[in-house]
Amino acid sequence: MTVRRKVCVVVASRANYGRIKSVLASCRSHPNIELQIIATASAVLSRFGHVVEVMRRDGFSPDANIHVVLEGNSPLTMVKSTGFAIQELGTAFELLRPDIVLTVADRYETLATAVAASYMNIHVAHTQGGEVTGSIDESVRHAITKLSHLHFVTTALSKARVLQMGEDPSRVYLTGCPAMDAVDQLDMALTPELLEKYDGTGAPIDLSRPYLMVLQHPVTTEHQSAGEQIVETIEAARRLAMPTLWLWPNIDAGTDHISYQLRQFCEVEKPSWLRIHRNFSVEDYARLINGCACLIGNSSSALREGAFLGTPAVNIGSRQRNRERGANVIDADSRADDIETAVRAQLRHGRYPRDALFGDGKAGRRIADILSTAELGSAQKQFFDVR
Amino acid sequence: MTVRRKVCVVVASRANYGRIKSVLASCRSHPNIELQIIATASAVLSRFGHVVEVMRRDGFSPDANIHVVLEGNSPLTMVKSTGFAIQELGTAFELLRPDIVLTVADRYETLATAVAASYMNIHVAHTQGGEVTGSIDESVRHAITKLSHLHFVTTALSKARVLQMGEDPSRVYLTGCPAMDAVDQLDMALTPELLEKYDGTGAPIDLSRPYLMVLQHPVTTEHQSAGEQIVETIEAARRLAMPTLWLWPNIDAGTDHISYQLRQFCEVEKPSWLRIHRNFSVEDYARLINGCACLIGNSSSALREGAFLGTPAVNIGSRQRNRERGANVIDADSRADDIETAVRAQLRHGRYPRDALFGDGKAGRRIADILSTAELGSAQKQFFDVR
Amino acid sequence: MTVRRKVCVVVASRANYGRIKSVLASCRSHPNIELQIIATASAVLSRFGHVVEVMRRDGFSPDANIHVVLEGNSPLTMVKSTGFAIQELGTAFELLRPDIVLTVADRYETLATAVAASYMNIHVAHTQGGEVTGSIDESVRHAITKLSHLHFVTTALSKARVLQMGEDPSRVYLTGCPAMDAVDQLDMALTPELLEKYDGTGAPIDLSRPYLMVLQHPVTTEHQSAGEQIVETIEAARRLAMPTLWLWPNIDAGTDHISYQLRQFCEVEKPSWLRIHRNFSVEDYARLINGCACLIGNSSSALREGAFLGTPAVNIGSRQRNRERGANVIDADSRADDIETAVRAQLRHGRYPRDALFGDGKAGRRIADILSTAELGSAQKQFFDVR
Amino acid sequence: MTVRRKVCVVVASRANYGRIKSVLASCRSHPNIELQIIATASAVLSRFGHVVEVMRRDGFSPDANIHVVLEGNSPLTMVKSTGFAIQELGTAFELLRPDIVLTVADRYETLATAVAASYMNIHVAHTQGGEVTGSIDESVRHAITKLSHLHFVTTALSKARVLQMGEDPSRVYLTGCPAMDAVDQLDMALTPELLEKYDGTGAPIDLSRPYLMVLQHPVTTEHQSAGEQIVETIEAARRLAMPTLWLWPNIDAGTDHISYQLRQFCEVEKPSWLRIHRNFSVEDYARLINGCACLIGNSSSALREGAFLGTPAVNIGSRQRNRERGANVIDADSRADDIETAVRAQLRHGRYPRDALFGDGKAGRRIADILSTAELGSAQKQFFDVR
Repeated sequence: MTVRRKVCVVVASRANYGRIKSVLASCRSHPNIELQIIATASAVLSRFGHVVEVMRRDGFSPDANIHVVLEGNSPLTMVKSTGFAIQELGTAFELLRPDIVLTVADRYETLATAVAASYMNIHVAHTQGGEVTGSIDESVRHAITKLSHLHFVTTALSKARVLQMGEDPSRVYLTGCPAMDAVDQLDMALTPELLEKYDGTGAPIDLSRPYLMVLQHPVTTEHQSAGEQIVETIEAARRLAMPTLWLWPNIDAGTDHISYQLRQFCEVEKPSWLRIHRNFSVEDYARLINGCACLIGNSSSALREGAFLGTPAVNIGSRQRNRERGANVIDADSRADDIETAVRAQLRHGRYPRDALFGDGKAGRRIADILSTAELGSAQKQFFDVR
Repeated sequence: MTVRRKVCVVVASRANYGRIKSVLASCRSHPNIELQIIATASAVLSRFGHVVEVMRRDGFSPDANIHVVLEGNSPLTMVKSTGFAIQELGTAFELLRPDIVLTVADRYETLATAVAASYMNIHVAHTQGGEVTGSIDESVRHAITKLSHLHFVTTALSKARVLQMGEDPSRVYLTGCPAMDAVDQLDMALTPELLEKYDGTGAPIDLSRPYLMVLQHPVTTEHQSAGEQIVETIEAARRLAMPTLWLWPNIDAGTDHISYQLRQFCEVEKPSWLRIHRNFSVEDYARLINGCACLIGNSSSALREGAFLGTPAVNIGSRQRNRERGANVIDADSRADDIETAVRAQLRHGRYPRDALFGDGKAGRRIADILSTAELGSAQKQFFDVR
Repeated sequence: MTVRRKVCVVVASRANYGRIKSVLASCRSHPNIELQIIATASAVLSRFGHVVEVMRRDGFSPDANIHVVLEGNSPLTMVKSTGFAIQELGTAFELLRPDIVLTVADRYETLATAVAASYMNIHVAHTQGGEVTGSIDESVRHAITKLSHLHFVTTALSKARVLQMGEDPSRVYLTGCPAMDAVDQLDMALTPELLEKYDGTGAPIDLSRPYLMVLQHPVTTEHQSAGEQIVETIEAARRLAMPTLWLWPNIDAGTDHISYQLRQFCEVEKPSWLRIHRNFSVEDYARLINGCACLIGNSSSALREGAFLGTPAVNIGSRQRNRERGANVIDADSRADDIETAVRAQLRHGRYPRDALFGDGKAGRRIADILSTAELGSAQKQFFDVR
Repeated sequence: MTVRRKVCVVVASRANYGRIKSVLASCRSHPNIELQIIATASAVLSRFGHVVEVMRRDGFSPDANIHVVLEGNSPLTMVKSTGFAIQELGTAFELLRPDIVLTVADRYETLATAVAASYMNIHVAHTQGGEVTGSIDESVRHAITKLSHLHFVTTALSKARVLQMGEDPSRVYLTGCPAMDAVDQLDMALTPELLEKYDGTGAPIDLSRPYLMVLQHPVTTEHQSAGEQIVETIEAARRLAMPTLWLWPNIDAGTDHISYQLRQFCEVEKPSWLRIHRNFSVEDYARLINGCACLIGNSSSALREGAFLGTPAVNIGSRQRNRERGANVIDADSRADDIETAVRAQLRHGRYPRDALFGDGKAGRRIADILSTAELGSAQKQFFDVR
C-alpha cells in the first residue's frame, strides 16, 4: 500500500494563483499526492479581488484561510505582517502536517512560508527561483532559494543561478513556469460578455476593437515615489486616449499612493476611455493580454505570458530591470514621454511570434510528478561548492 | 561637519556577544560611528546567564532589550518566536533609525534581524557568512547572506562561498572573526578565584590541575534525540572521571532534553568530578578553554578559538560536520566509546601550535572602519553571475 | 518644584478624537500635566480619514502612531487585532512611562489599552463608563470600567451604574462628555465652502437648503446582516430623495458589507441627491449635524450631540437600544418603511430645544484638573460592596 | 435527535486544572455535552510540572495545546503573553467552534480567553466570579465577569457581588467550587510511596510524622519585592526547622526572584528538613494539605480546600487580603517573626472541623447540567440595574 504524500501549496495573491494553478490541478488528480491548500495574504482579501472565491469556483477549496495583512502602507507594517504570517503559517503547518510545502516566487509571504516550514523541518519546494528582477523582492527570492529543498525553475539561466548559489544539482528542475500551462490550454476567444462578469468602474470597453491594458505595481524600494510614478503612466494613457483596461495593483508598501492617484484622476477627469477592474480570473486575464494591442506597466506577466503569447509590451521603470525578456518587450523610463513613445512603437509593430523562453505549457504535470517521487530524506541541506 | 553613521548591532545570545564584542568596542570609540545596541532572544534571559548584565559591566548598555522567546521546546515555538522577533525588531529599528544593522552568524534571531532590517530598506551587515556547519542553522546563515549588503567573512573559503552565491565582490570583506580579537589580547592566567565569580553547581574544580570542558548543544534537525546524545557524552565523561567543567547548552529545540538528563545524572550519581556552570564572561571562557586539557562537545568554539589557542578538542556528532577545522580537532560519533577514545588520544597529544585560520586578532577594528566608510547607496541588491 | 504628571491619551478612531479633543486641549495647556498622545487603530488609517492628520492640524502631534488593524472582515480578525493592540500598546507604554493612561469609551482598542496599562501597573482613566448601548461594545465598556482607576462619566445614570459595579465612589466623577465642549464653543455657521474642503463622491449638496445626514455603523453581534440593514436605510433615503450627506461607517466586522452596498447603489442608480464623505473635522461634523434637517442612522452622536444641539434624529435598529436619550430622538426598526415614516415625522417637527443630558460643555477642563490632582497610590483596586 | 452542545474548557495552569477537573469529568460523561479541552499558558510548560501529562493520565486529552508564555519576568512580557494568548485562542476557537467556552477564575490567560471568545460571539462561562482577593488578579476577575454570560459562583457573598455588577440574575448560579468535589471523593490516606512518584530535590520527608507545607506565589503588584518576601518565609521555616514540603510558585512577574532565593538557600544551607517539589496531582496535593500540620504561604487553597478539610493554615501578606475565609486561617504579615508565631499557634491548635463555605463537593455535576441546558440565545448581554 502506498501512502500518499501530503503536498501543501500556499497561495498568497492572485499572481501566485495564476502561477501555480496548473500545479494544483495536477496535484489534485495525482494518485500519490494528497493536496493541501492554504490561502493567505492578499488572496483572502476582498480588496484584492477575493482570490479564494475564484479558487473555489475552480474547485480548489483551501484547507485554511489565513489573514496576515496589517493595514497601513509602510515598510514597518510589511515587517509586522511578515512576522505575523510566520506565526500563523506555523500553526497551519502544525495542524496539516504536510510532507512538502510549495511556495511561489518571491514576496514577503513566500519568505514567511519558507521560514515557517523549514524551521519545522518540513521540505520546502519553490517555483521561480534564480530569477533576477531588480526589485527588493529579488533578494527575498534568493533567500527563499537558500531555505528550499526542491527548486522548480523557469529558464536555463535561472537554473544556472540556483546552482551557482550552492544548491544540490539533483534537486534543481528546469520545469518551465506553470503559468504558461493555463495559457497554452486556453480558448483565447474574447466574448463581448467577458467584462460583464466582473465589477469594474469607469467607461465601457469594447473588446472587439483595439485596447490597451495597464498593470503597474509599486516598487518596494521606491515606495514613496509610487504616486509620482503612476502619475506619469496616467498622463501617457491620457495622451494615447485609447480604450484602456486598468488593474488595481498588488498589496505592498506604496499601493495606497497608486490607488489614490488613480481614484483622483477618475473623479476629476472622468475619462471616457478608461475602465478599472480589481481582477480577472487567470483565464480571462490571459485572454485579455492575448487580445490587447499593448500591455503597459511593470508586471512580470508582460515579460512572461507576454513572450509566450507574443503580446507587445511596454515595461516601465526598474521593477523588472534584470529579468530575462523576449523580443516582445520595449523598456521605458517612468516618464510620460517615454511611455507614450514606446506604446506608439508597439502599436505600429503589432503582435510577435510565440516564444517558449519561460515554459512550454507542461510545467504543472512535471512538477506534480517530481513532488510525488523526489526523495525527501533529512531536512538538513548541504552547500555545493562550484569550482 | 561629518554626520556620524548609526550602526545598530543586535546581540542575541552569549555566543553572539563573544563574537561581536571587539566590534562593539571598536565602533564605540570610532569617531564616525554612533553605536546602537539591541539585546534580544537568550541575551536578555536570566536562564541563559543574563548576557545583558555582562555587557553592562563591559560598558555596553543596550538601547533596547527585547524579549522574543516563547517558552516551550518545539519547532513551532521557535517559529512563533521568530515571527515575534521580526515584529519587535521592526519597532526597534523604526525608533532607532540606524543606517546599518549588524547581525551575527546564523540563528533564527539573526534571520529575524536581517528580514526586519532589509524590509525596512536598512543596510544589513553580516558576520560569518559562507561558513558551512552541517546544521539547520547553515541554511539560515546562507539565507541571511542573500538578504545582507555587507559581508564580514572569517576564512578564504567562506569568502569564496559568499561570492559564489552571487554577492557583490566589492561588498565581501575577509576580516577574520572578531572572537579571536578578544582571545588575542587576553591575559590567559587561570587564577584560583576564577570559578568563584560564577554560580555553579556540583563538585569544586581545581584549575591548576588538568581538567576537561564540555559544551554540547542540541542539533536542531535531531532535536528529539538530544537526550540520547547527551547520555553518551555523560557516559564518556563518567568513564574518564577527570575534573570536568560542563556548560548548559544554548536555548533551542532539544535544550530541555539535555538539561533534564544532566540534572538527572547529577541527582542520581552525585559525581565528585563534575561542576556545571551557566556561563562565563567571554574572557574567562577563553581562559578556560585555553587552559583545559581537552574541549569536548559540538561547540564551534572548539574549532575556532580552539585553533587560535591550540586547544585539543573532541568534536561530537553532526553539528559542526562541514565546518573548516585545524589540526587541533578529532571528530567522534555520538557514542560513549568513540568519545572516550578520542579524548584519551587528545590527552596523550597535548597542546597544538596556534593557527590563524579563523582570524588574526584584528577583525574588530577592520569591521568598524568598513562600517564607517562603505558606500551605502540603494538597499536594492544585484545578483552577480559567476562564469 | 513640581513634577508634572504624565498623562497618555490613546486616540483610536475619529469618534474617539471628537470625544476627547477638549481634554487634549485642556491637558496640553495645564501647568501640571505633560501630555502624551498615542494614535492607533482606525485613527492612523487613510481608509478612515487619517485622523492623525486632523489631529496634527489641531496641534496634537502623536508621540506614537501604532498600526494594529489586521485586514479582513470577521470576528477572528478583530480578535487578532485586539491581541496585537495589547502587545504594541505595551511597548509604547514601556517607552513613554505615563503615570495615567486615558482611554475613551468602549471599542476593542479601548479594552486593549486598559488591559495593557493595568497589567503594567499604570493607572487607567476612562471616559463614558456606565453607559448602556445594546451592542457587544457595551460588555467591553463595563469590562474596561472594572480595569480602570478613574472614571469620568457623562450622566447621573451612568454614574449610578459605575458605582453599582463596585467602583470606589471617590474615583467616579460626573464630568459630562467632552464632546459637548467642542460643540459649545463652536461658530455654527455653515459656509458654502465647508464641503469643498473634503474629498467626497456623488452629487453636490447645497447646505443652505434642507438636507439629511446618514451615519450607520455595522452592529457587531449582527455583522452578517450589516448588508441587509444598510439596504433598508438606502431604500428609505431613496424614497425621501432629499439632499443627503452620507458618511462611511467605522471599521468593524460588517463594515465591508455596508461599503459594498453603498458603492453598488451609487454605481447602479447614480442618485442625484446623494453625496458620500469619508469624514469631517470634529467641528465641521458638529456644524453639519447642527444644520441638518434630520440625522439618520445608529451613531451615538444623534443621541448625544443631537440632544445638546436639538437636532431631530432617527435612530435605527439595536445599536443604541439601551442608551439614554432626550426628546430629539425617534427610534425606528431597520425597515425602509419605518425609517421613512420616522424621518417624515421629524421633518414636520423641526428643531428641539437644547438639553444638557450628556454634558454642559465644560468637561475637558474638569477632567484635566482631576487628572492632575487625583491621588494615584497603588494600582491595586478594591471592590466596594453596595448594601 | 439531539445535537450535543460543544463545551470548550480552557485549562491554563495546574491550579486551574484542580479547580475544574470535576467539571471536566462531569462534562465528559454527560450525554448532551461534547467536551473540548484547550491547555495553554503554564499548563503546557514542563517548568511548571507539565500539567498536560497529568491531564492525559486522567483521561483528559487536550484538543489543542497552545504555547503563549513569552519568557522573561516583567509586566511587559505578561502584557505580550496576554496579547499572544488572545490571538492563539482565537485560532483555536475558530477551529473548534464551541457553543460555550468555560474559563476558570482570574489570571491573564483567563481574561484572554474571555476576550477572544466574547469577541467571536461565543458564550463565555466563568467559575469563581465575584471573589475578592486583594491582588491585581481581582480586577481581571471582575472584568471577566463583565464579559461572561454564565456565572458559576462559589459562595453566597460572591453571588451577591456578581449580581451587584449588573449581571442577569437568571445566569448566576451558586454551585460551589469544583475543587471541593475532588477533595470530597478522595481516599485521604498518605502512603509512604506518595512522594516517590514525583521528582523533588532536597531532604527526604517522612509523611507519617508531622510536616509543614509551603506554597507562596509572587504578588503581581509587588513583584519587585517577591524576593524579599520569600526570604522572610524561608527564615521562618528555618527557625521552625520541621520537615517541610515546599512547592515552586506559579509563573508570574516575580516568580524568578522567588525561585532564585529558594535555590540559593538550598545551595548554601543544604537544609536537612526541606524538600522542594514542582507539583503534585490534584489528588496528592489534597492528600498532602489534608495531612500536613500547617499550610503556609499565600495560596488560596489554604483558605478554600483548607476550610473544607479543616487544615490549619497561615496566610502571608496581601495576596488573599479580601478573600472570604473560615476559622482555619491565621493571617500573618510578610515578616519572619509574624509567620513563625502564627505557625506555632496553629501547631498548638491542630485540625479544625470541616466547613462547606466554598462548596459541598457536588459542583461539577451541577455545572455540567447547567452548561448542557442553559438557554444561550444572543451573545449580546444586558446590564441589570439594581435599585
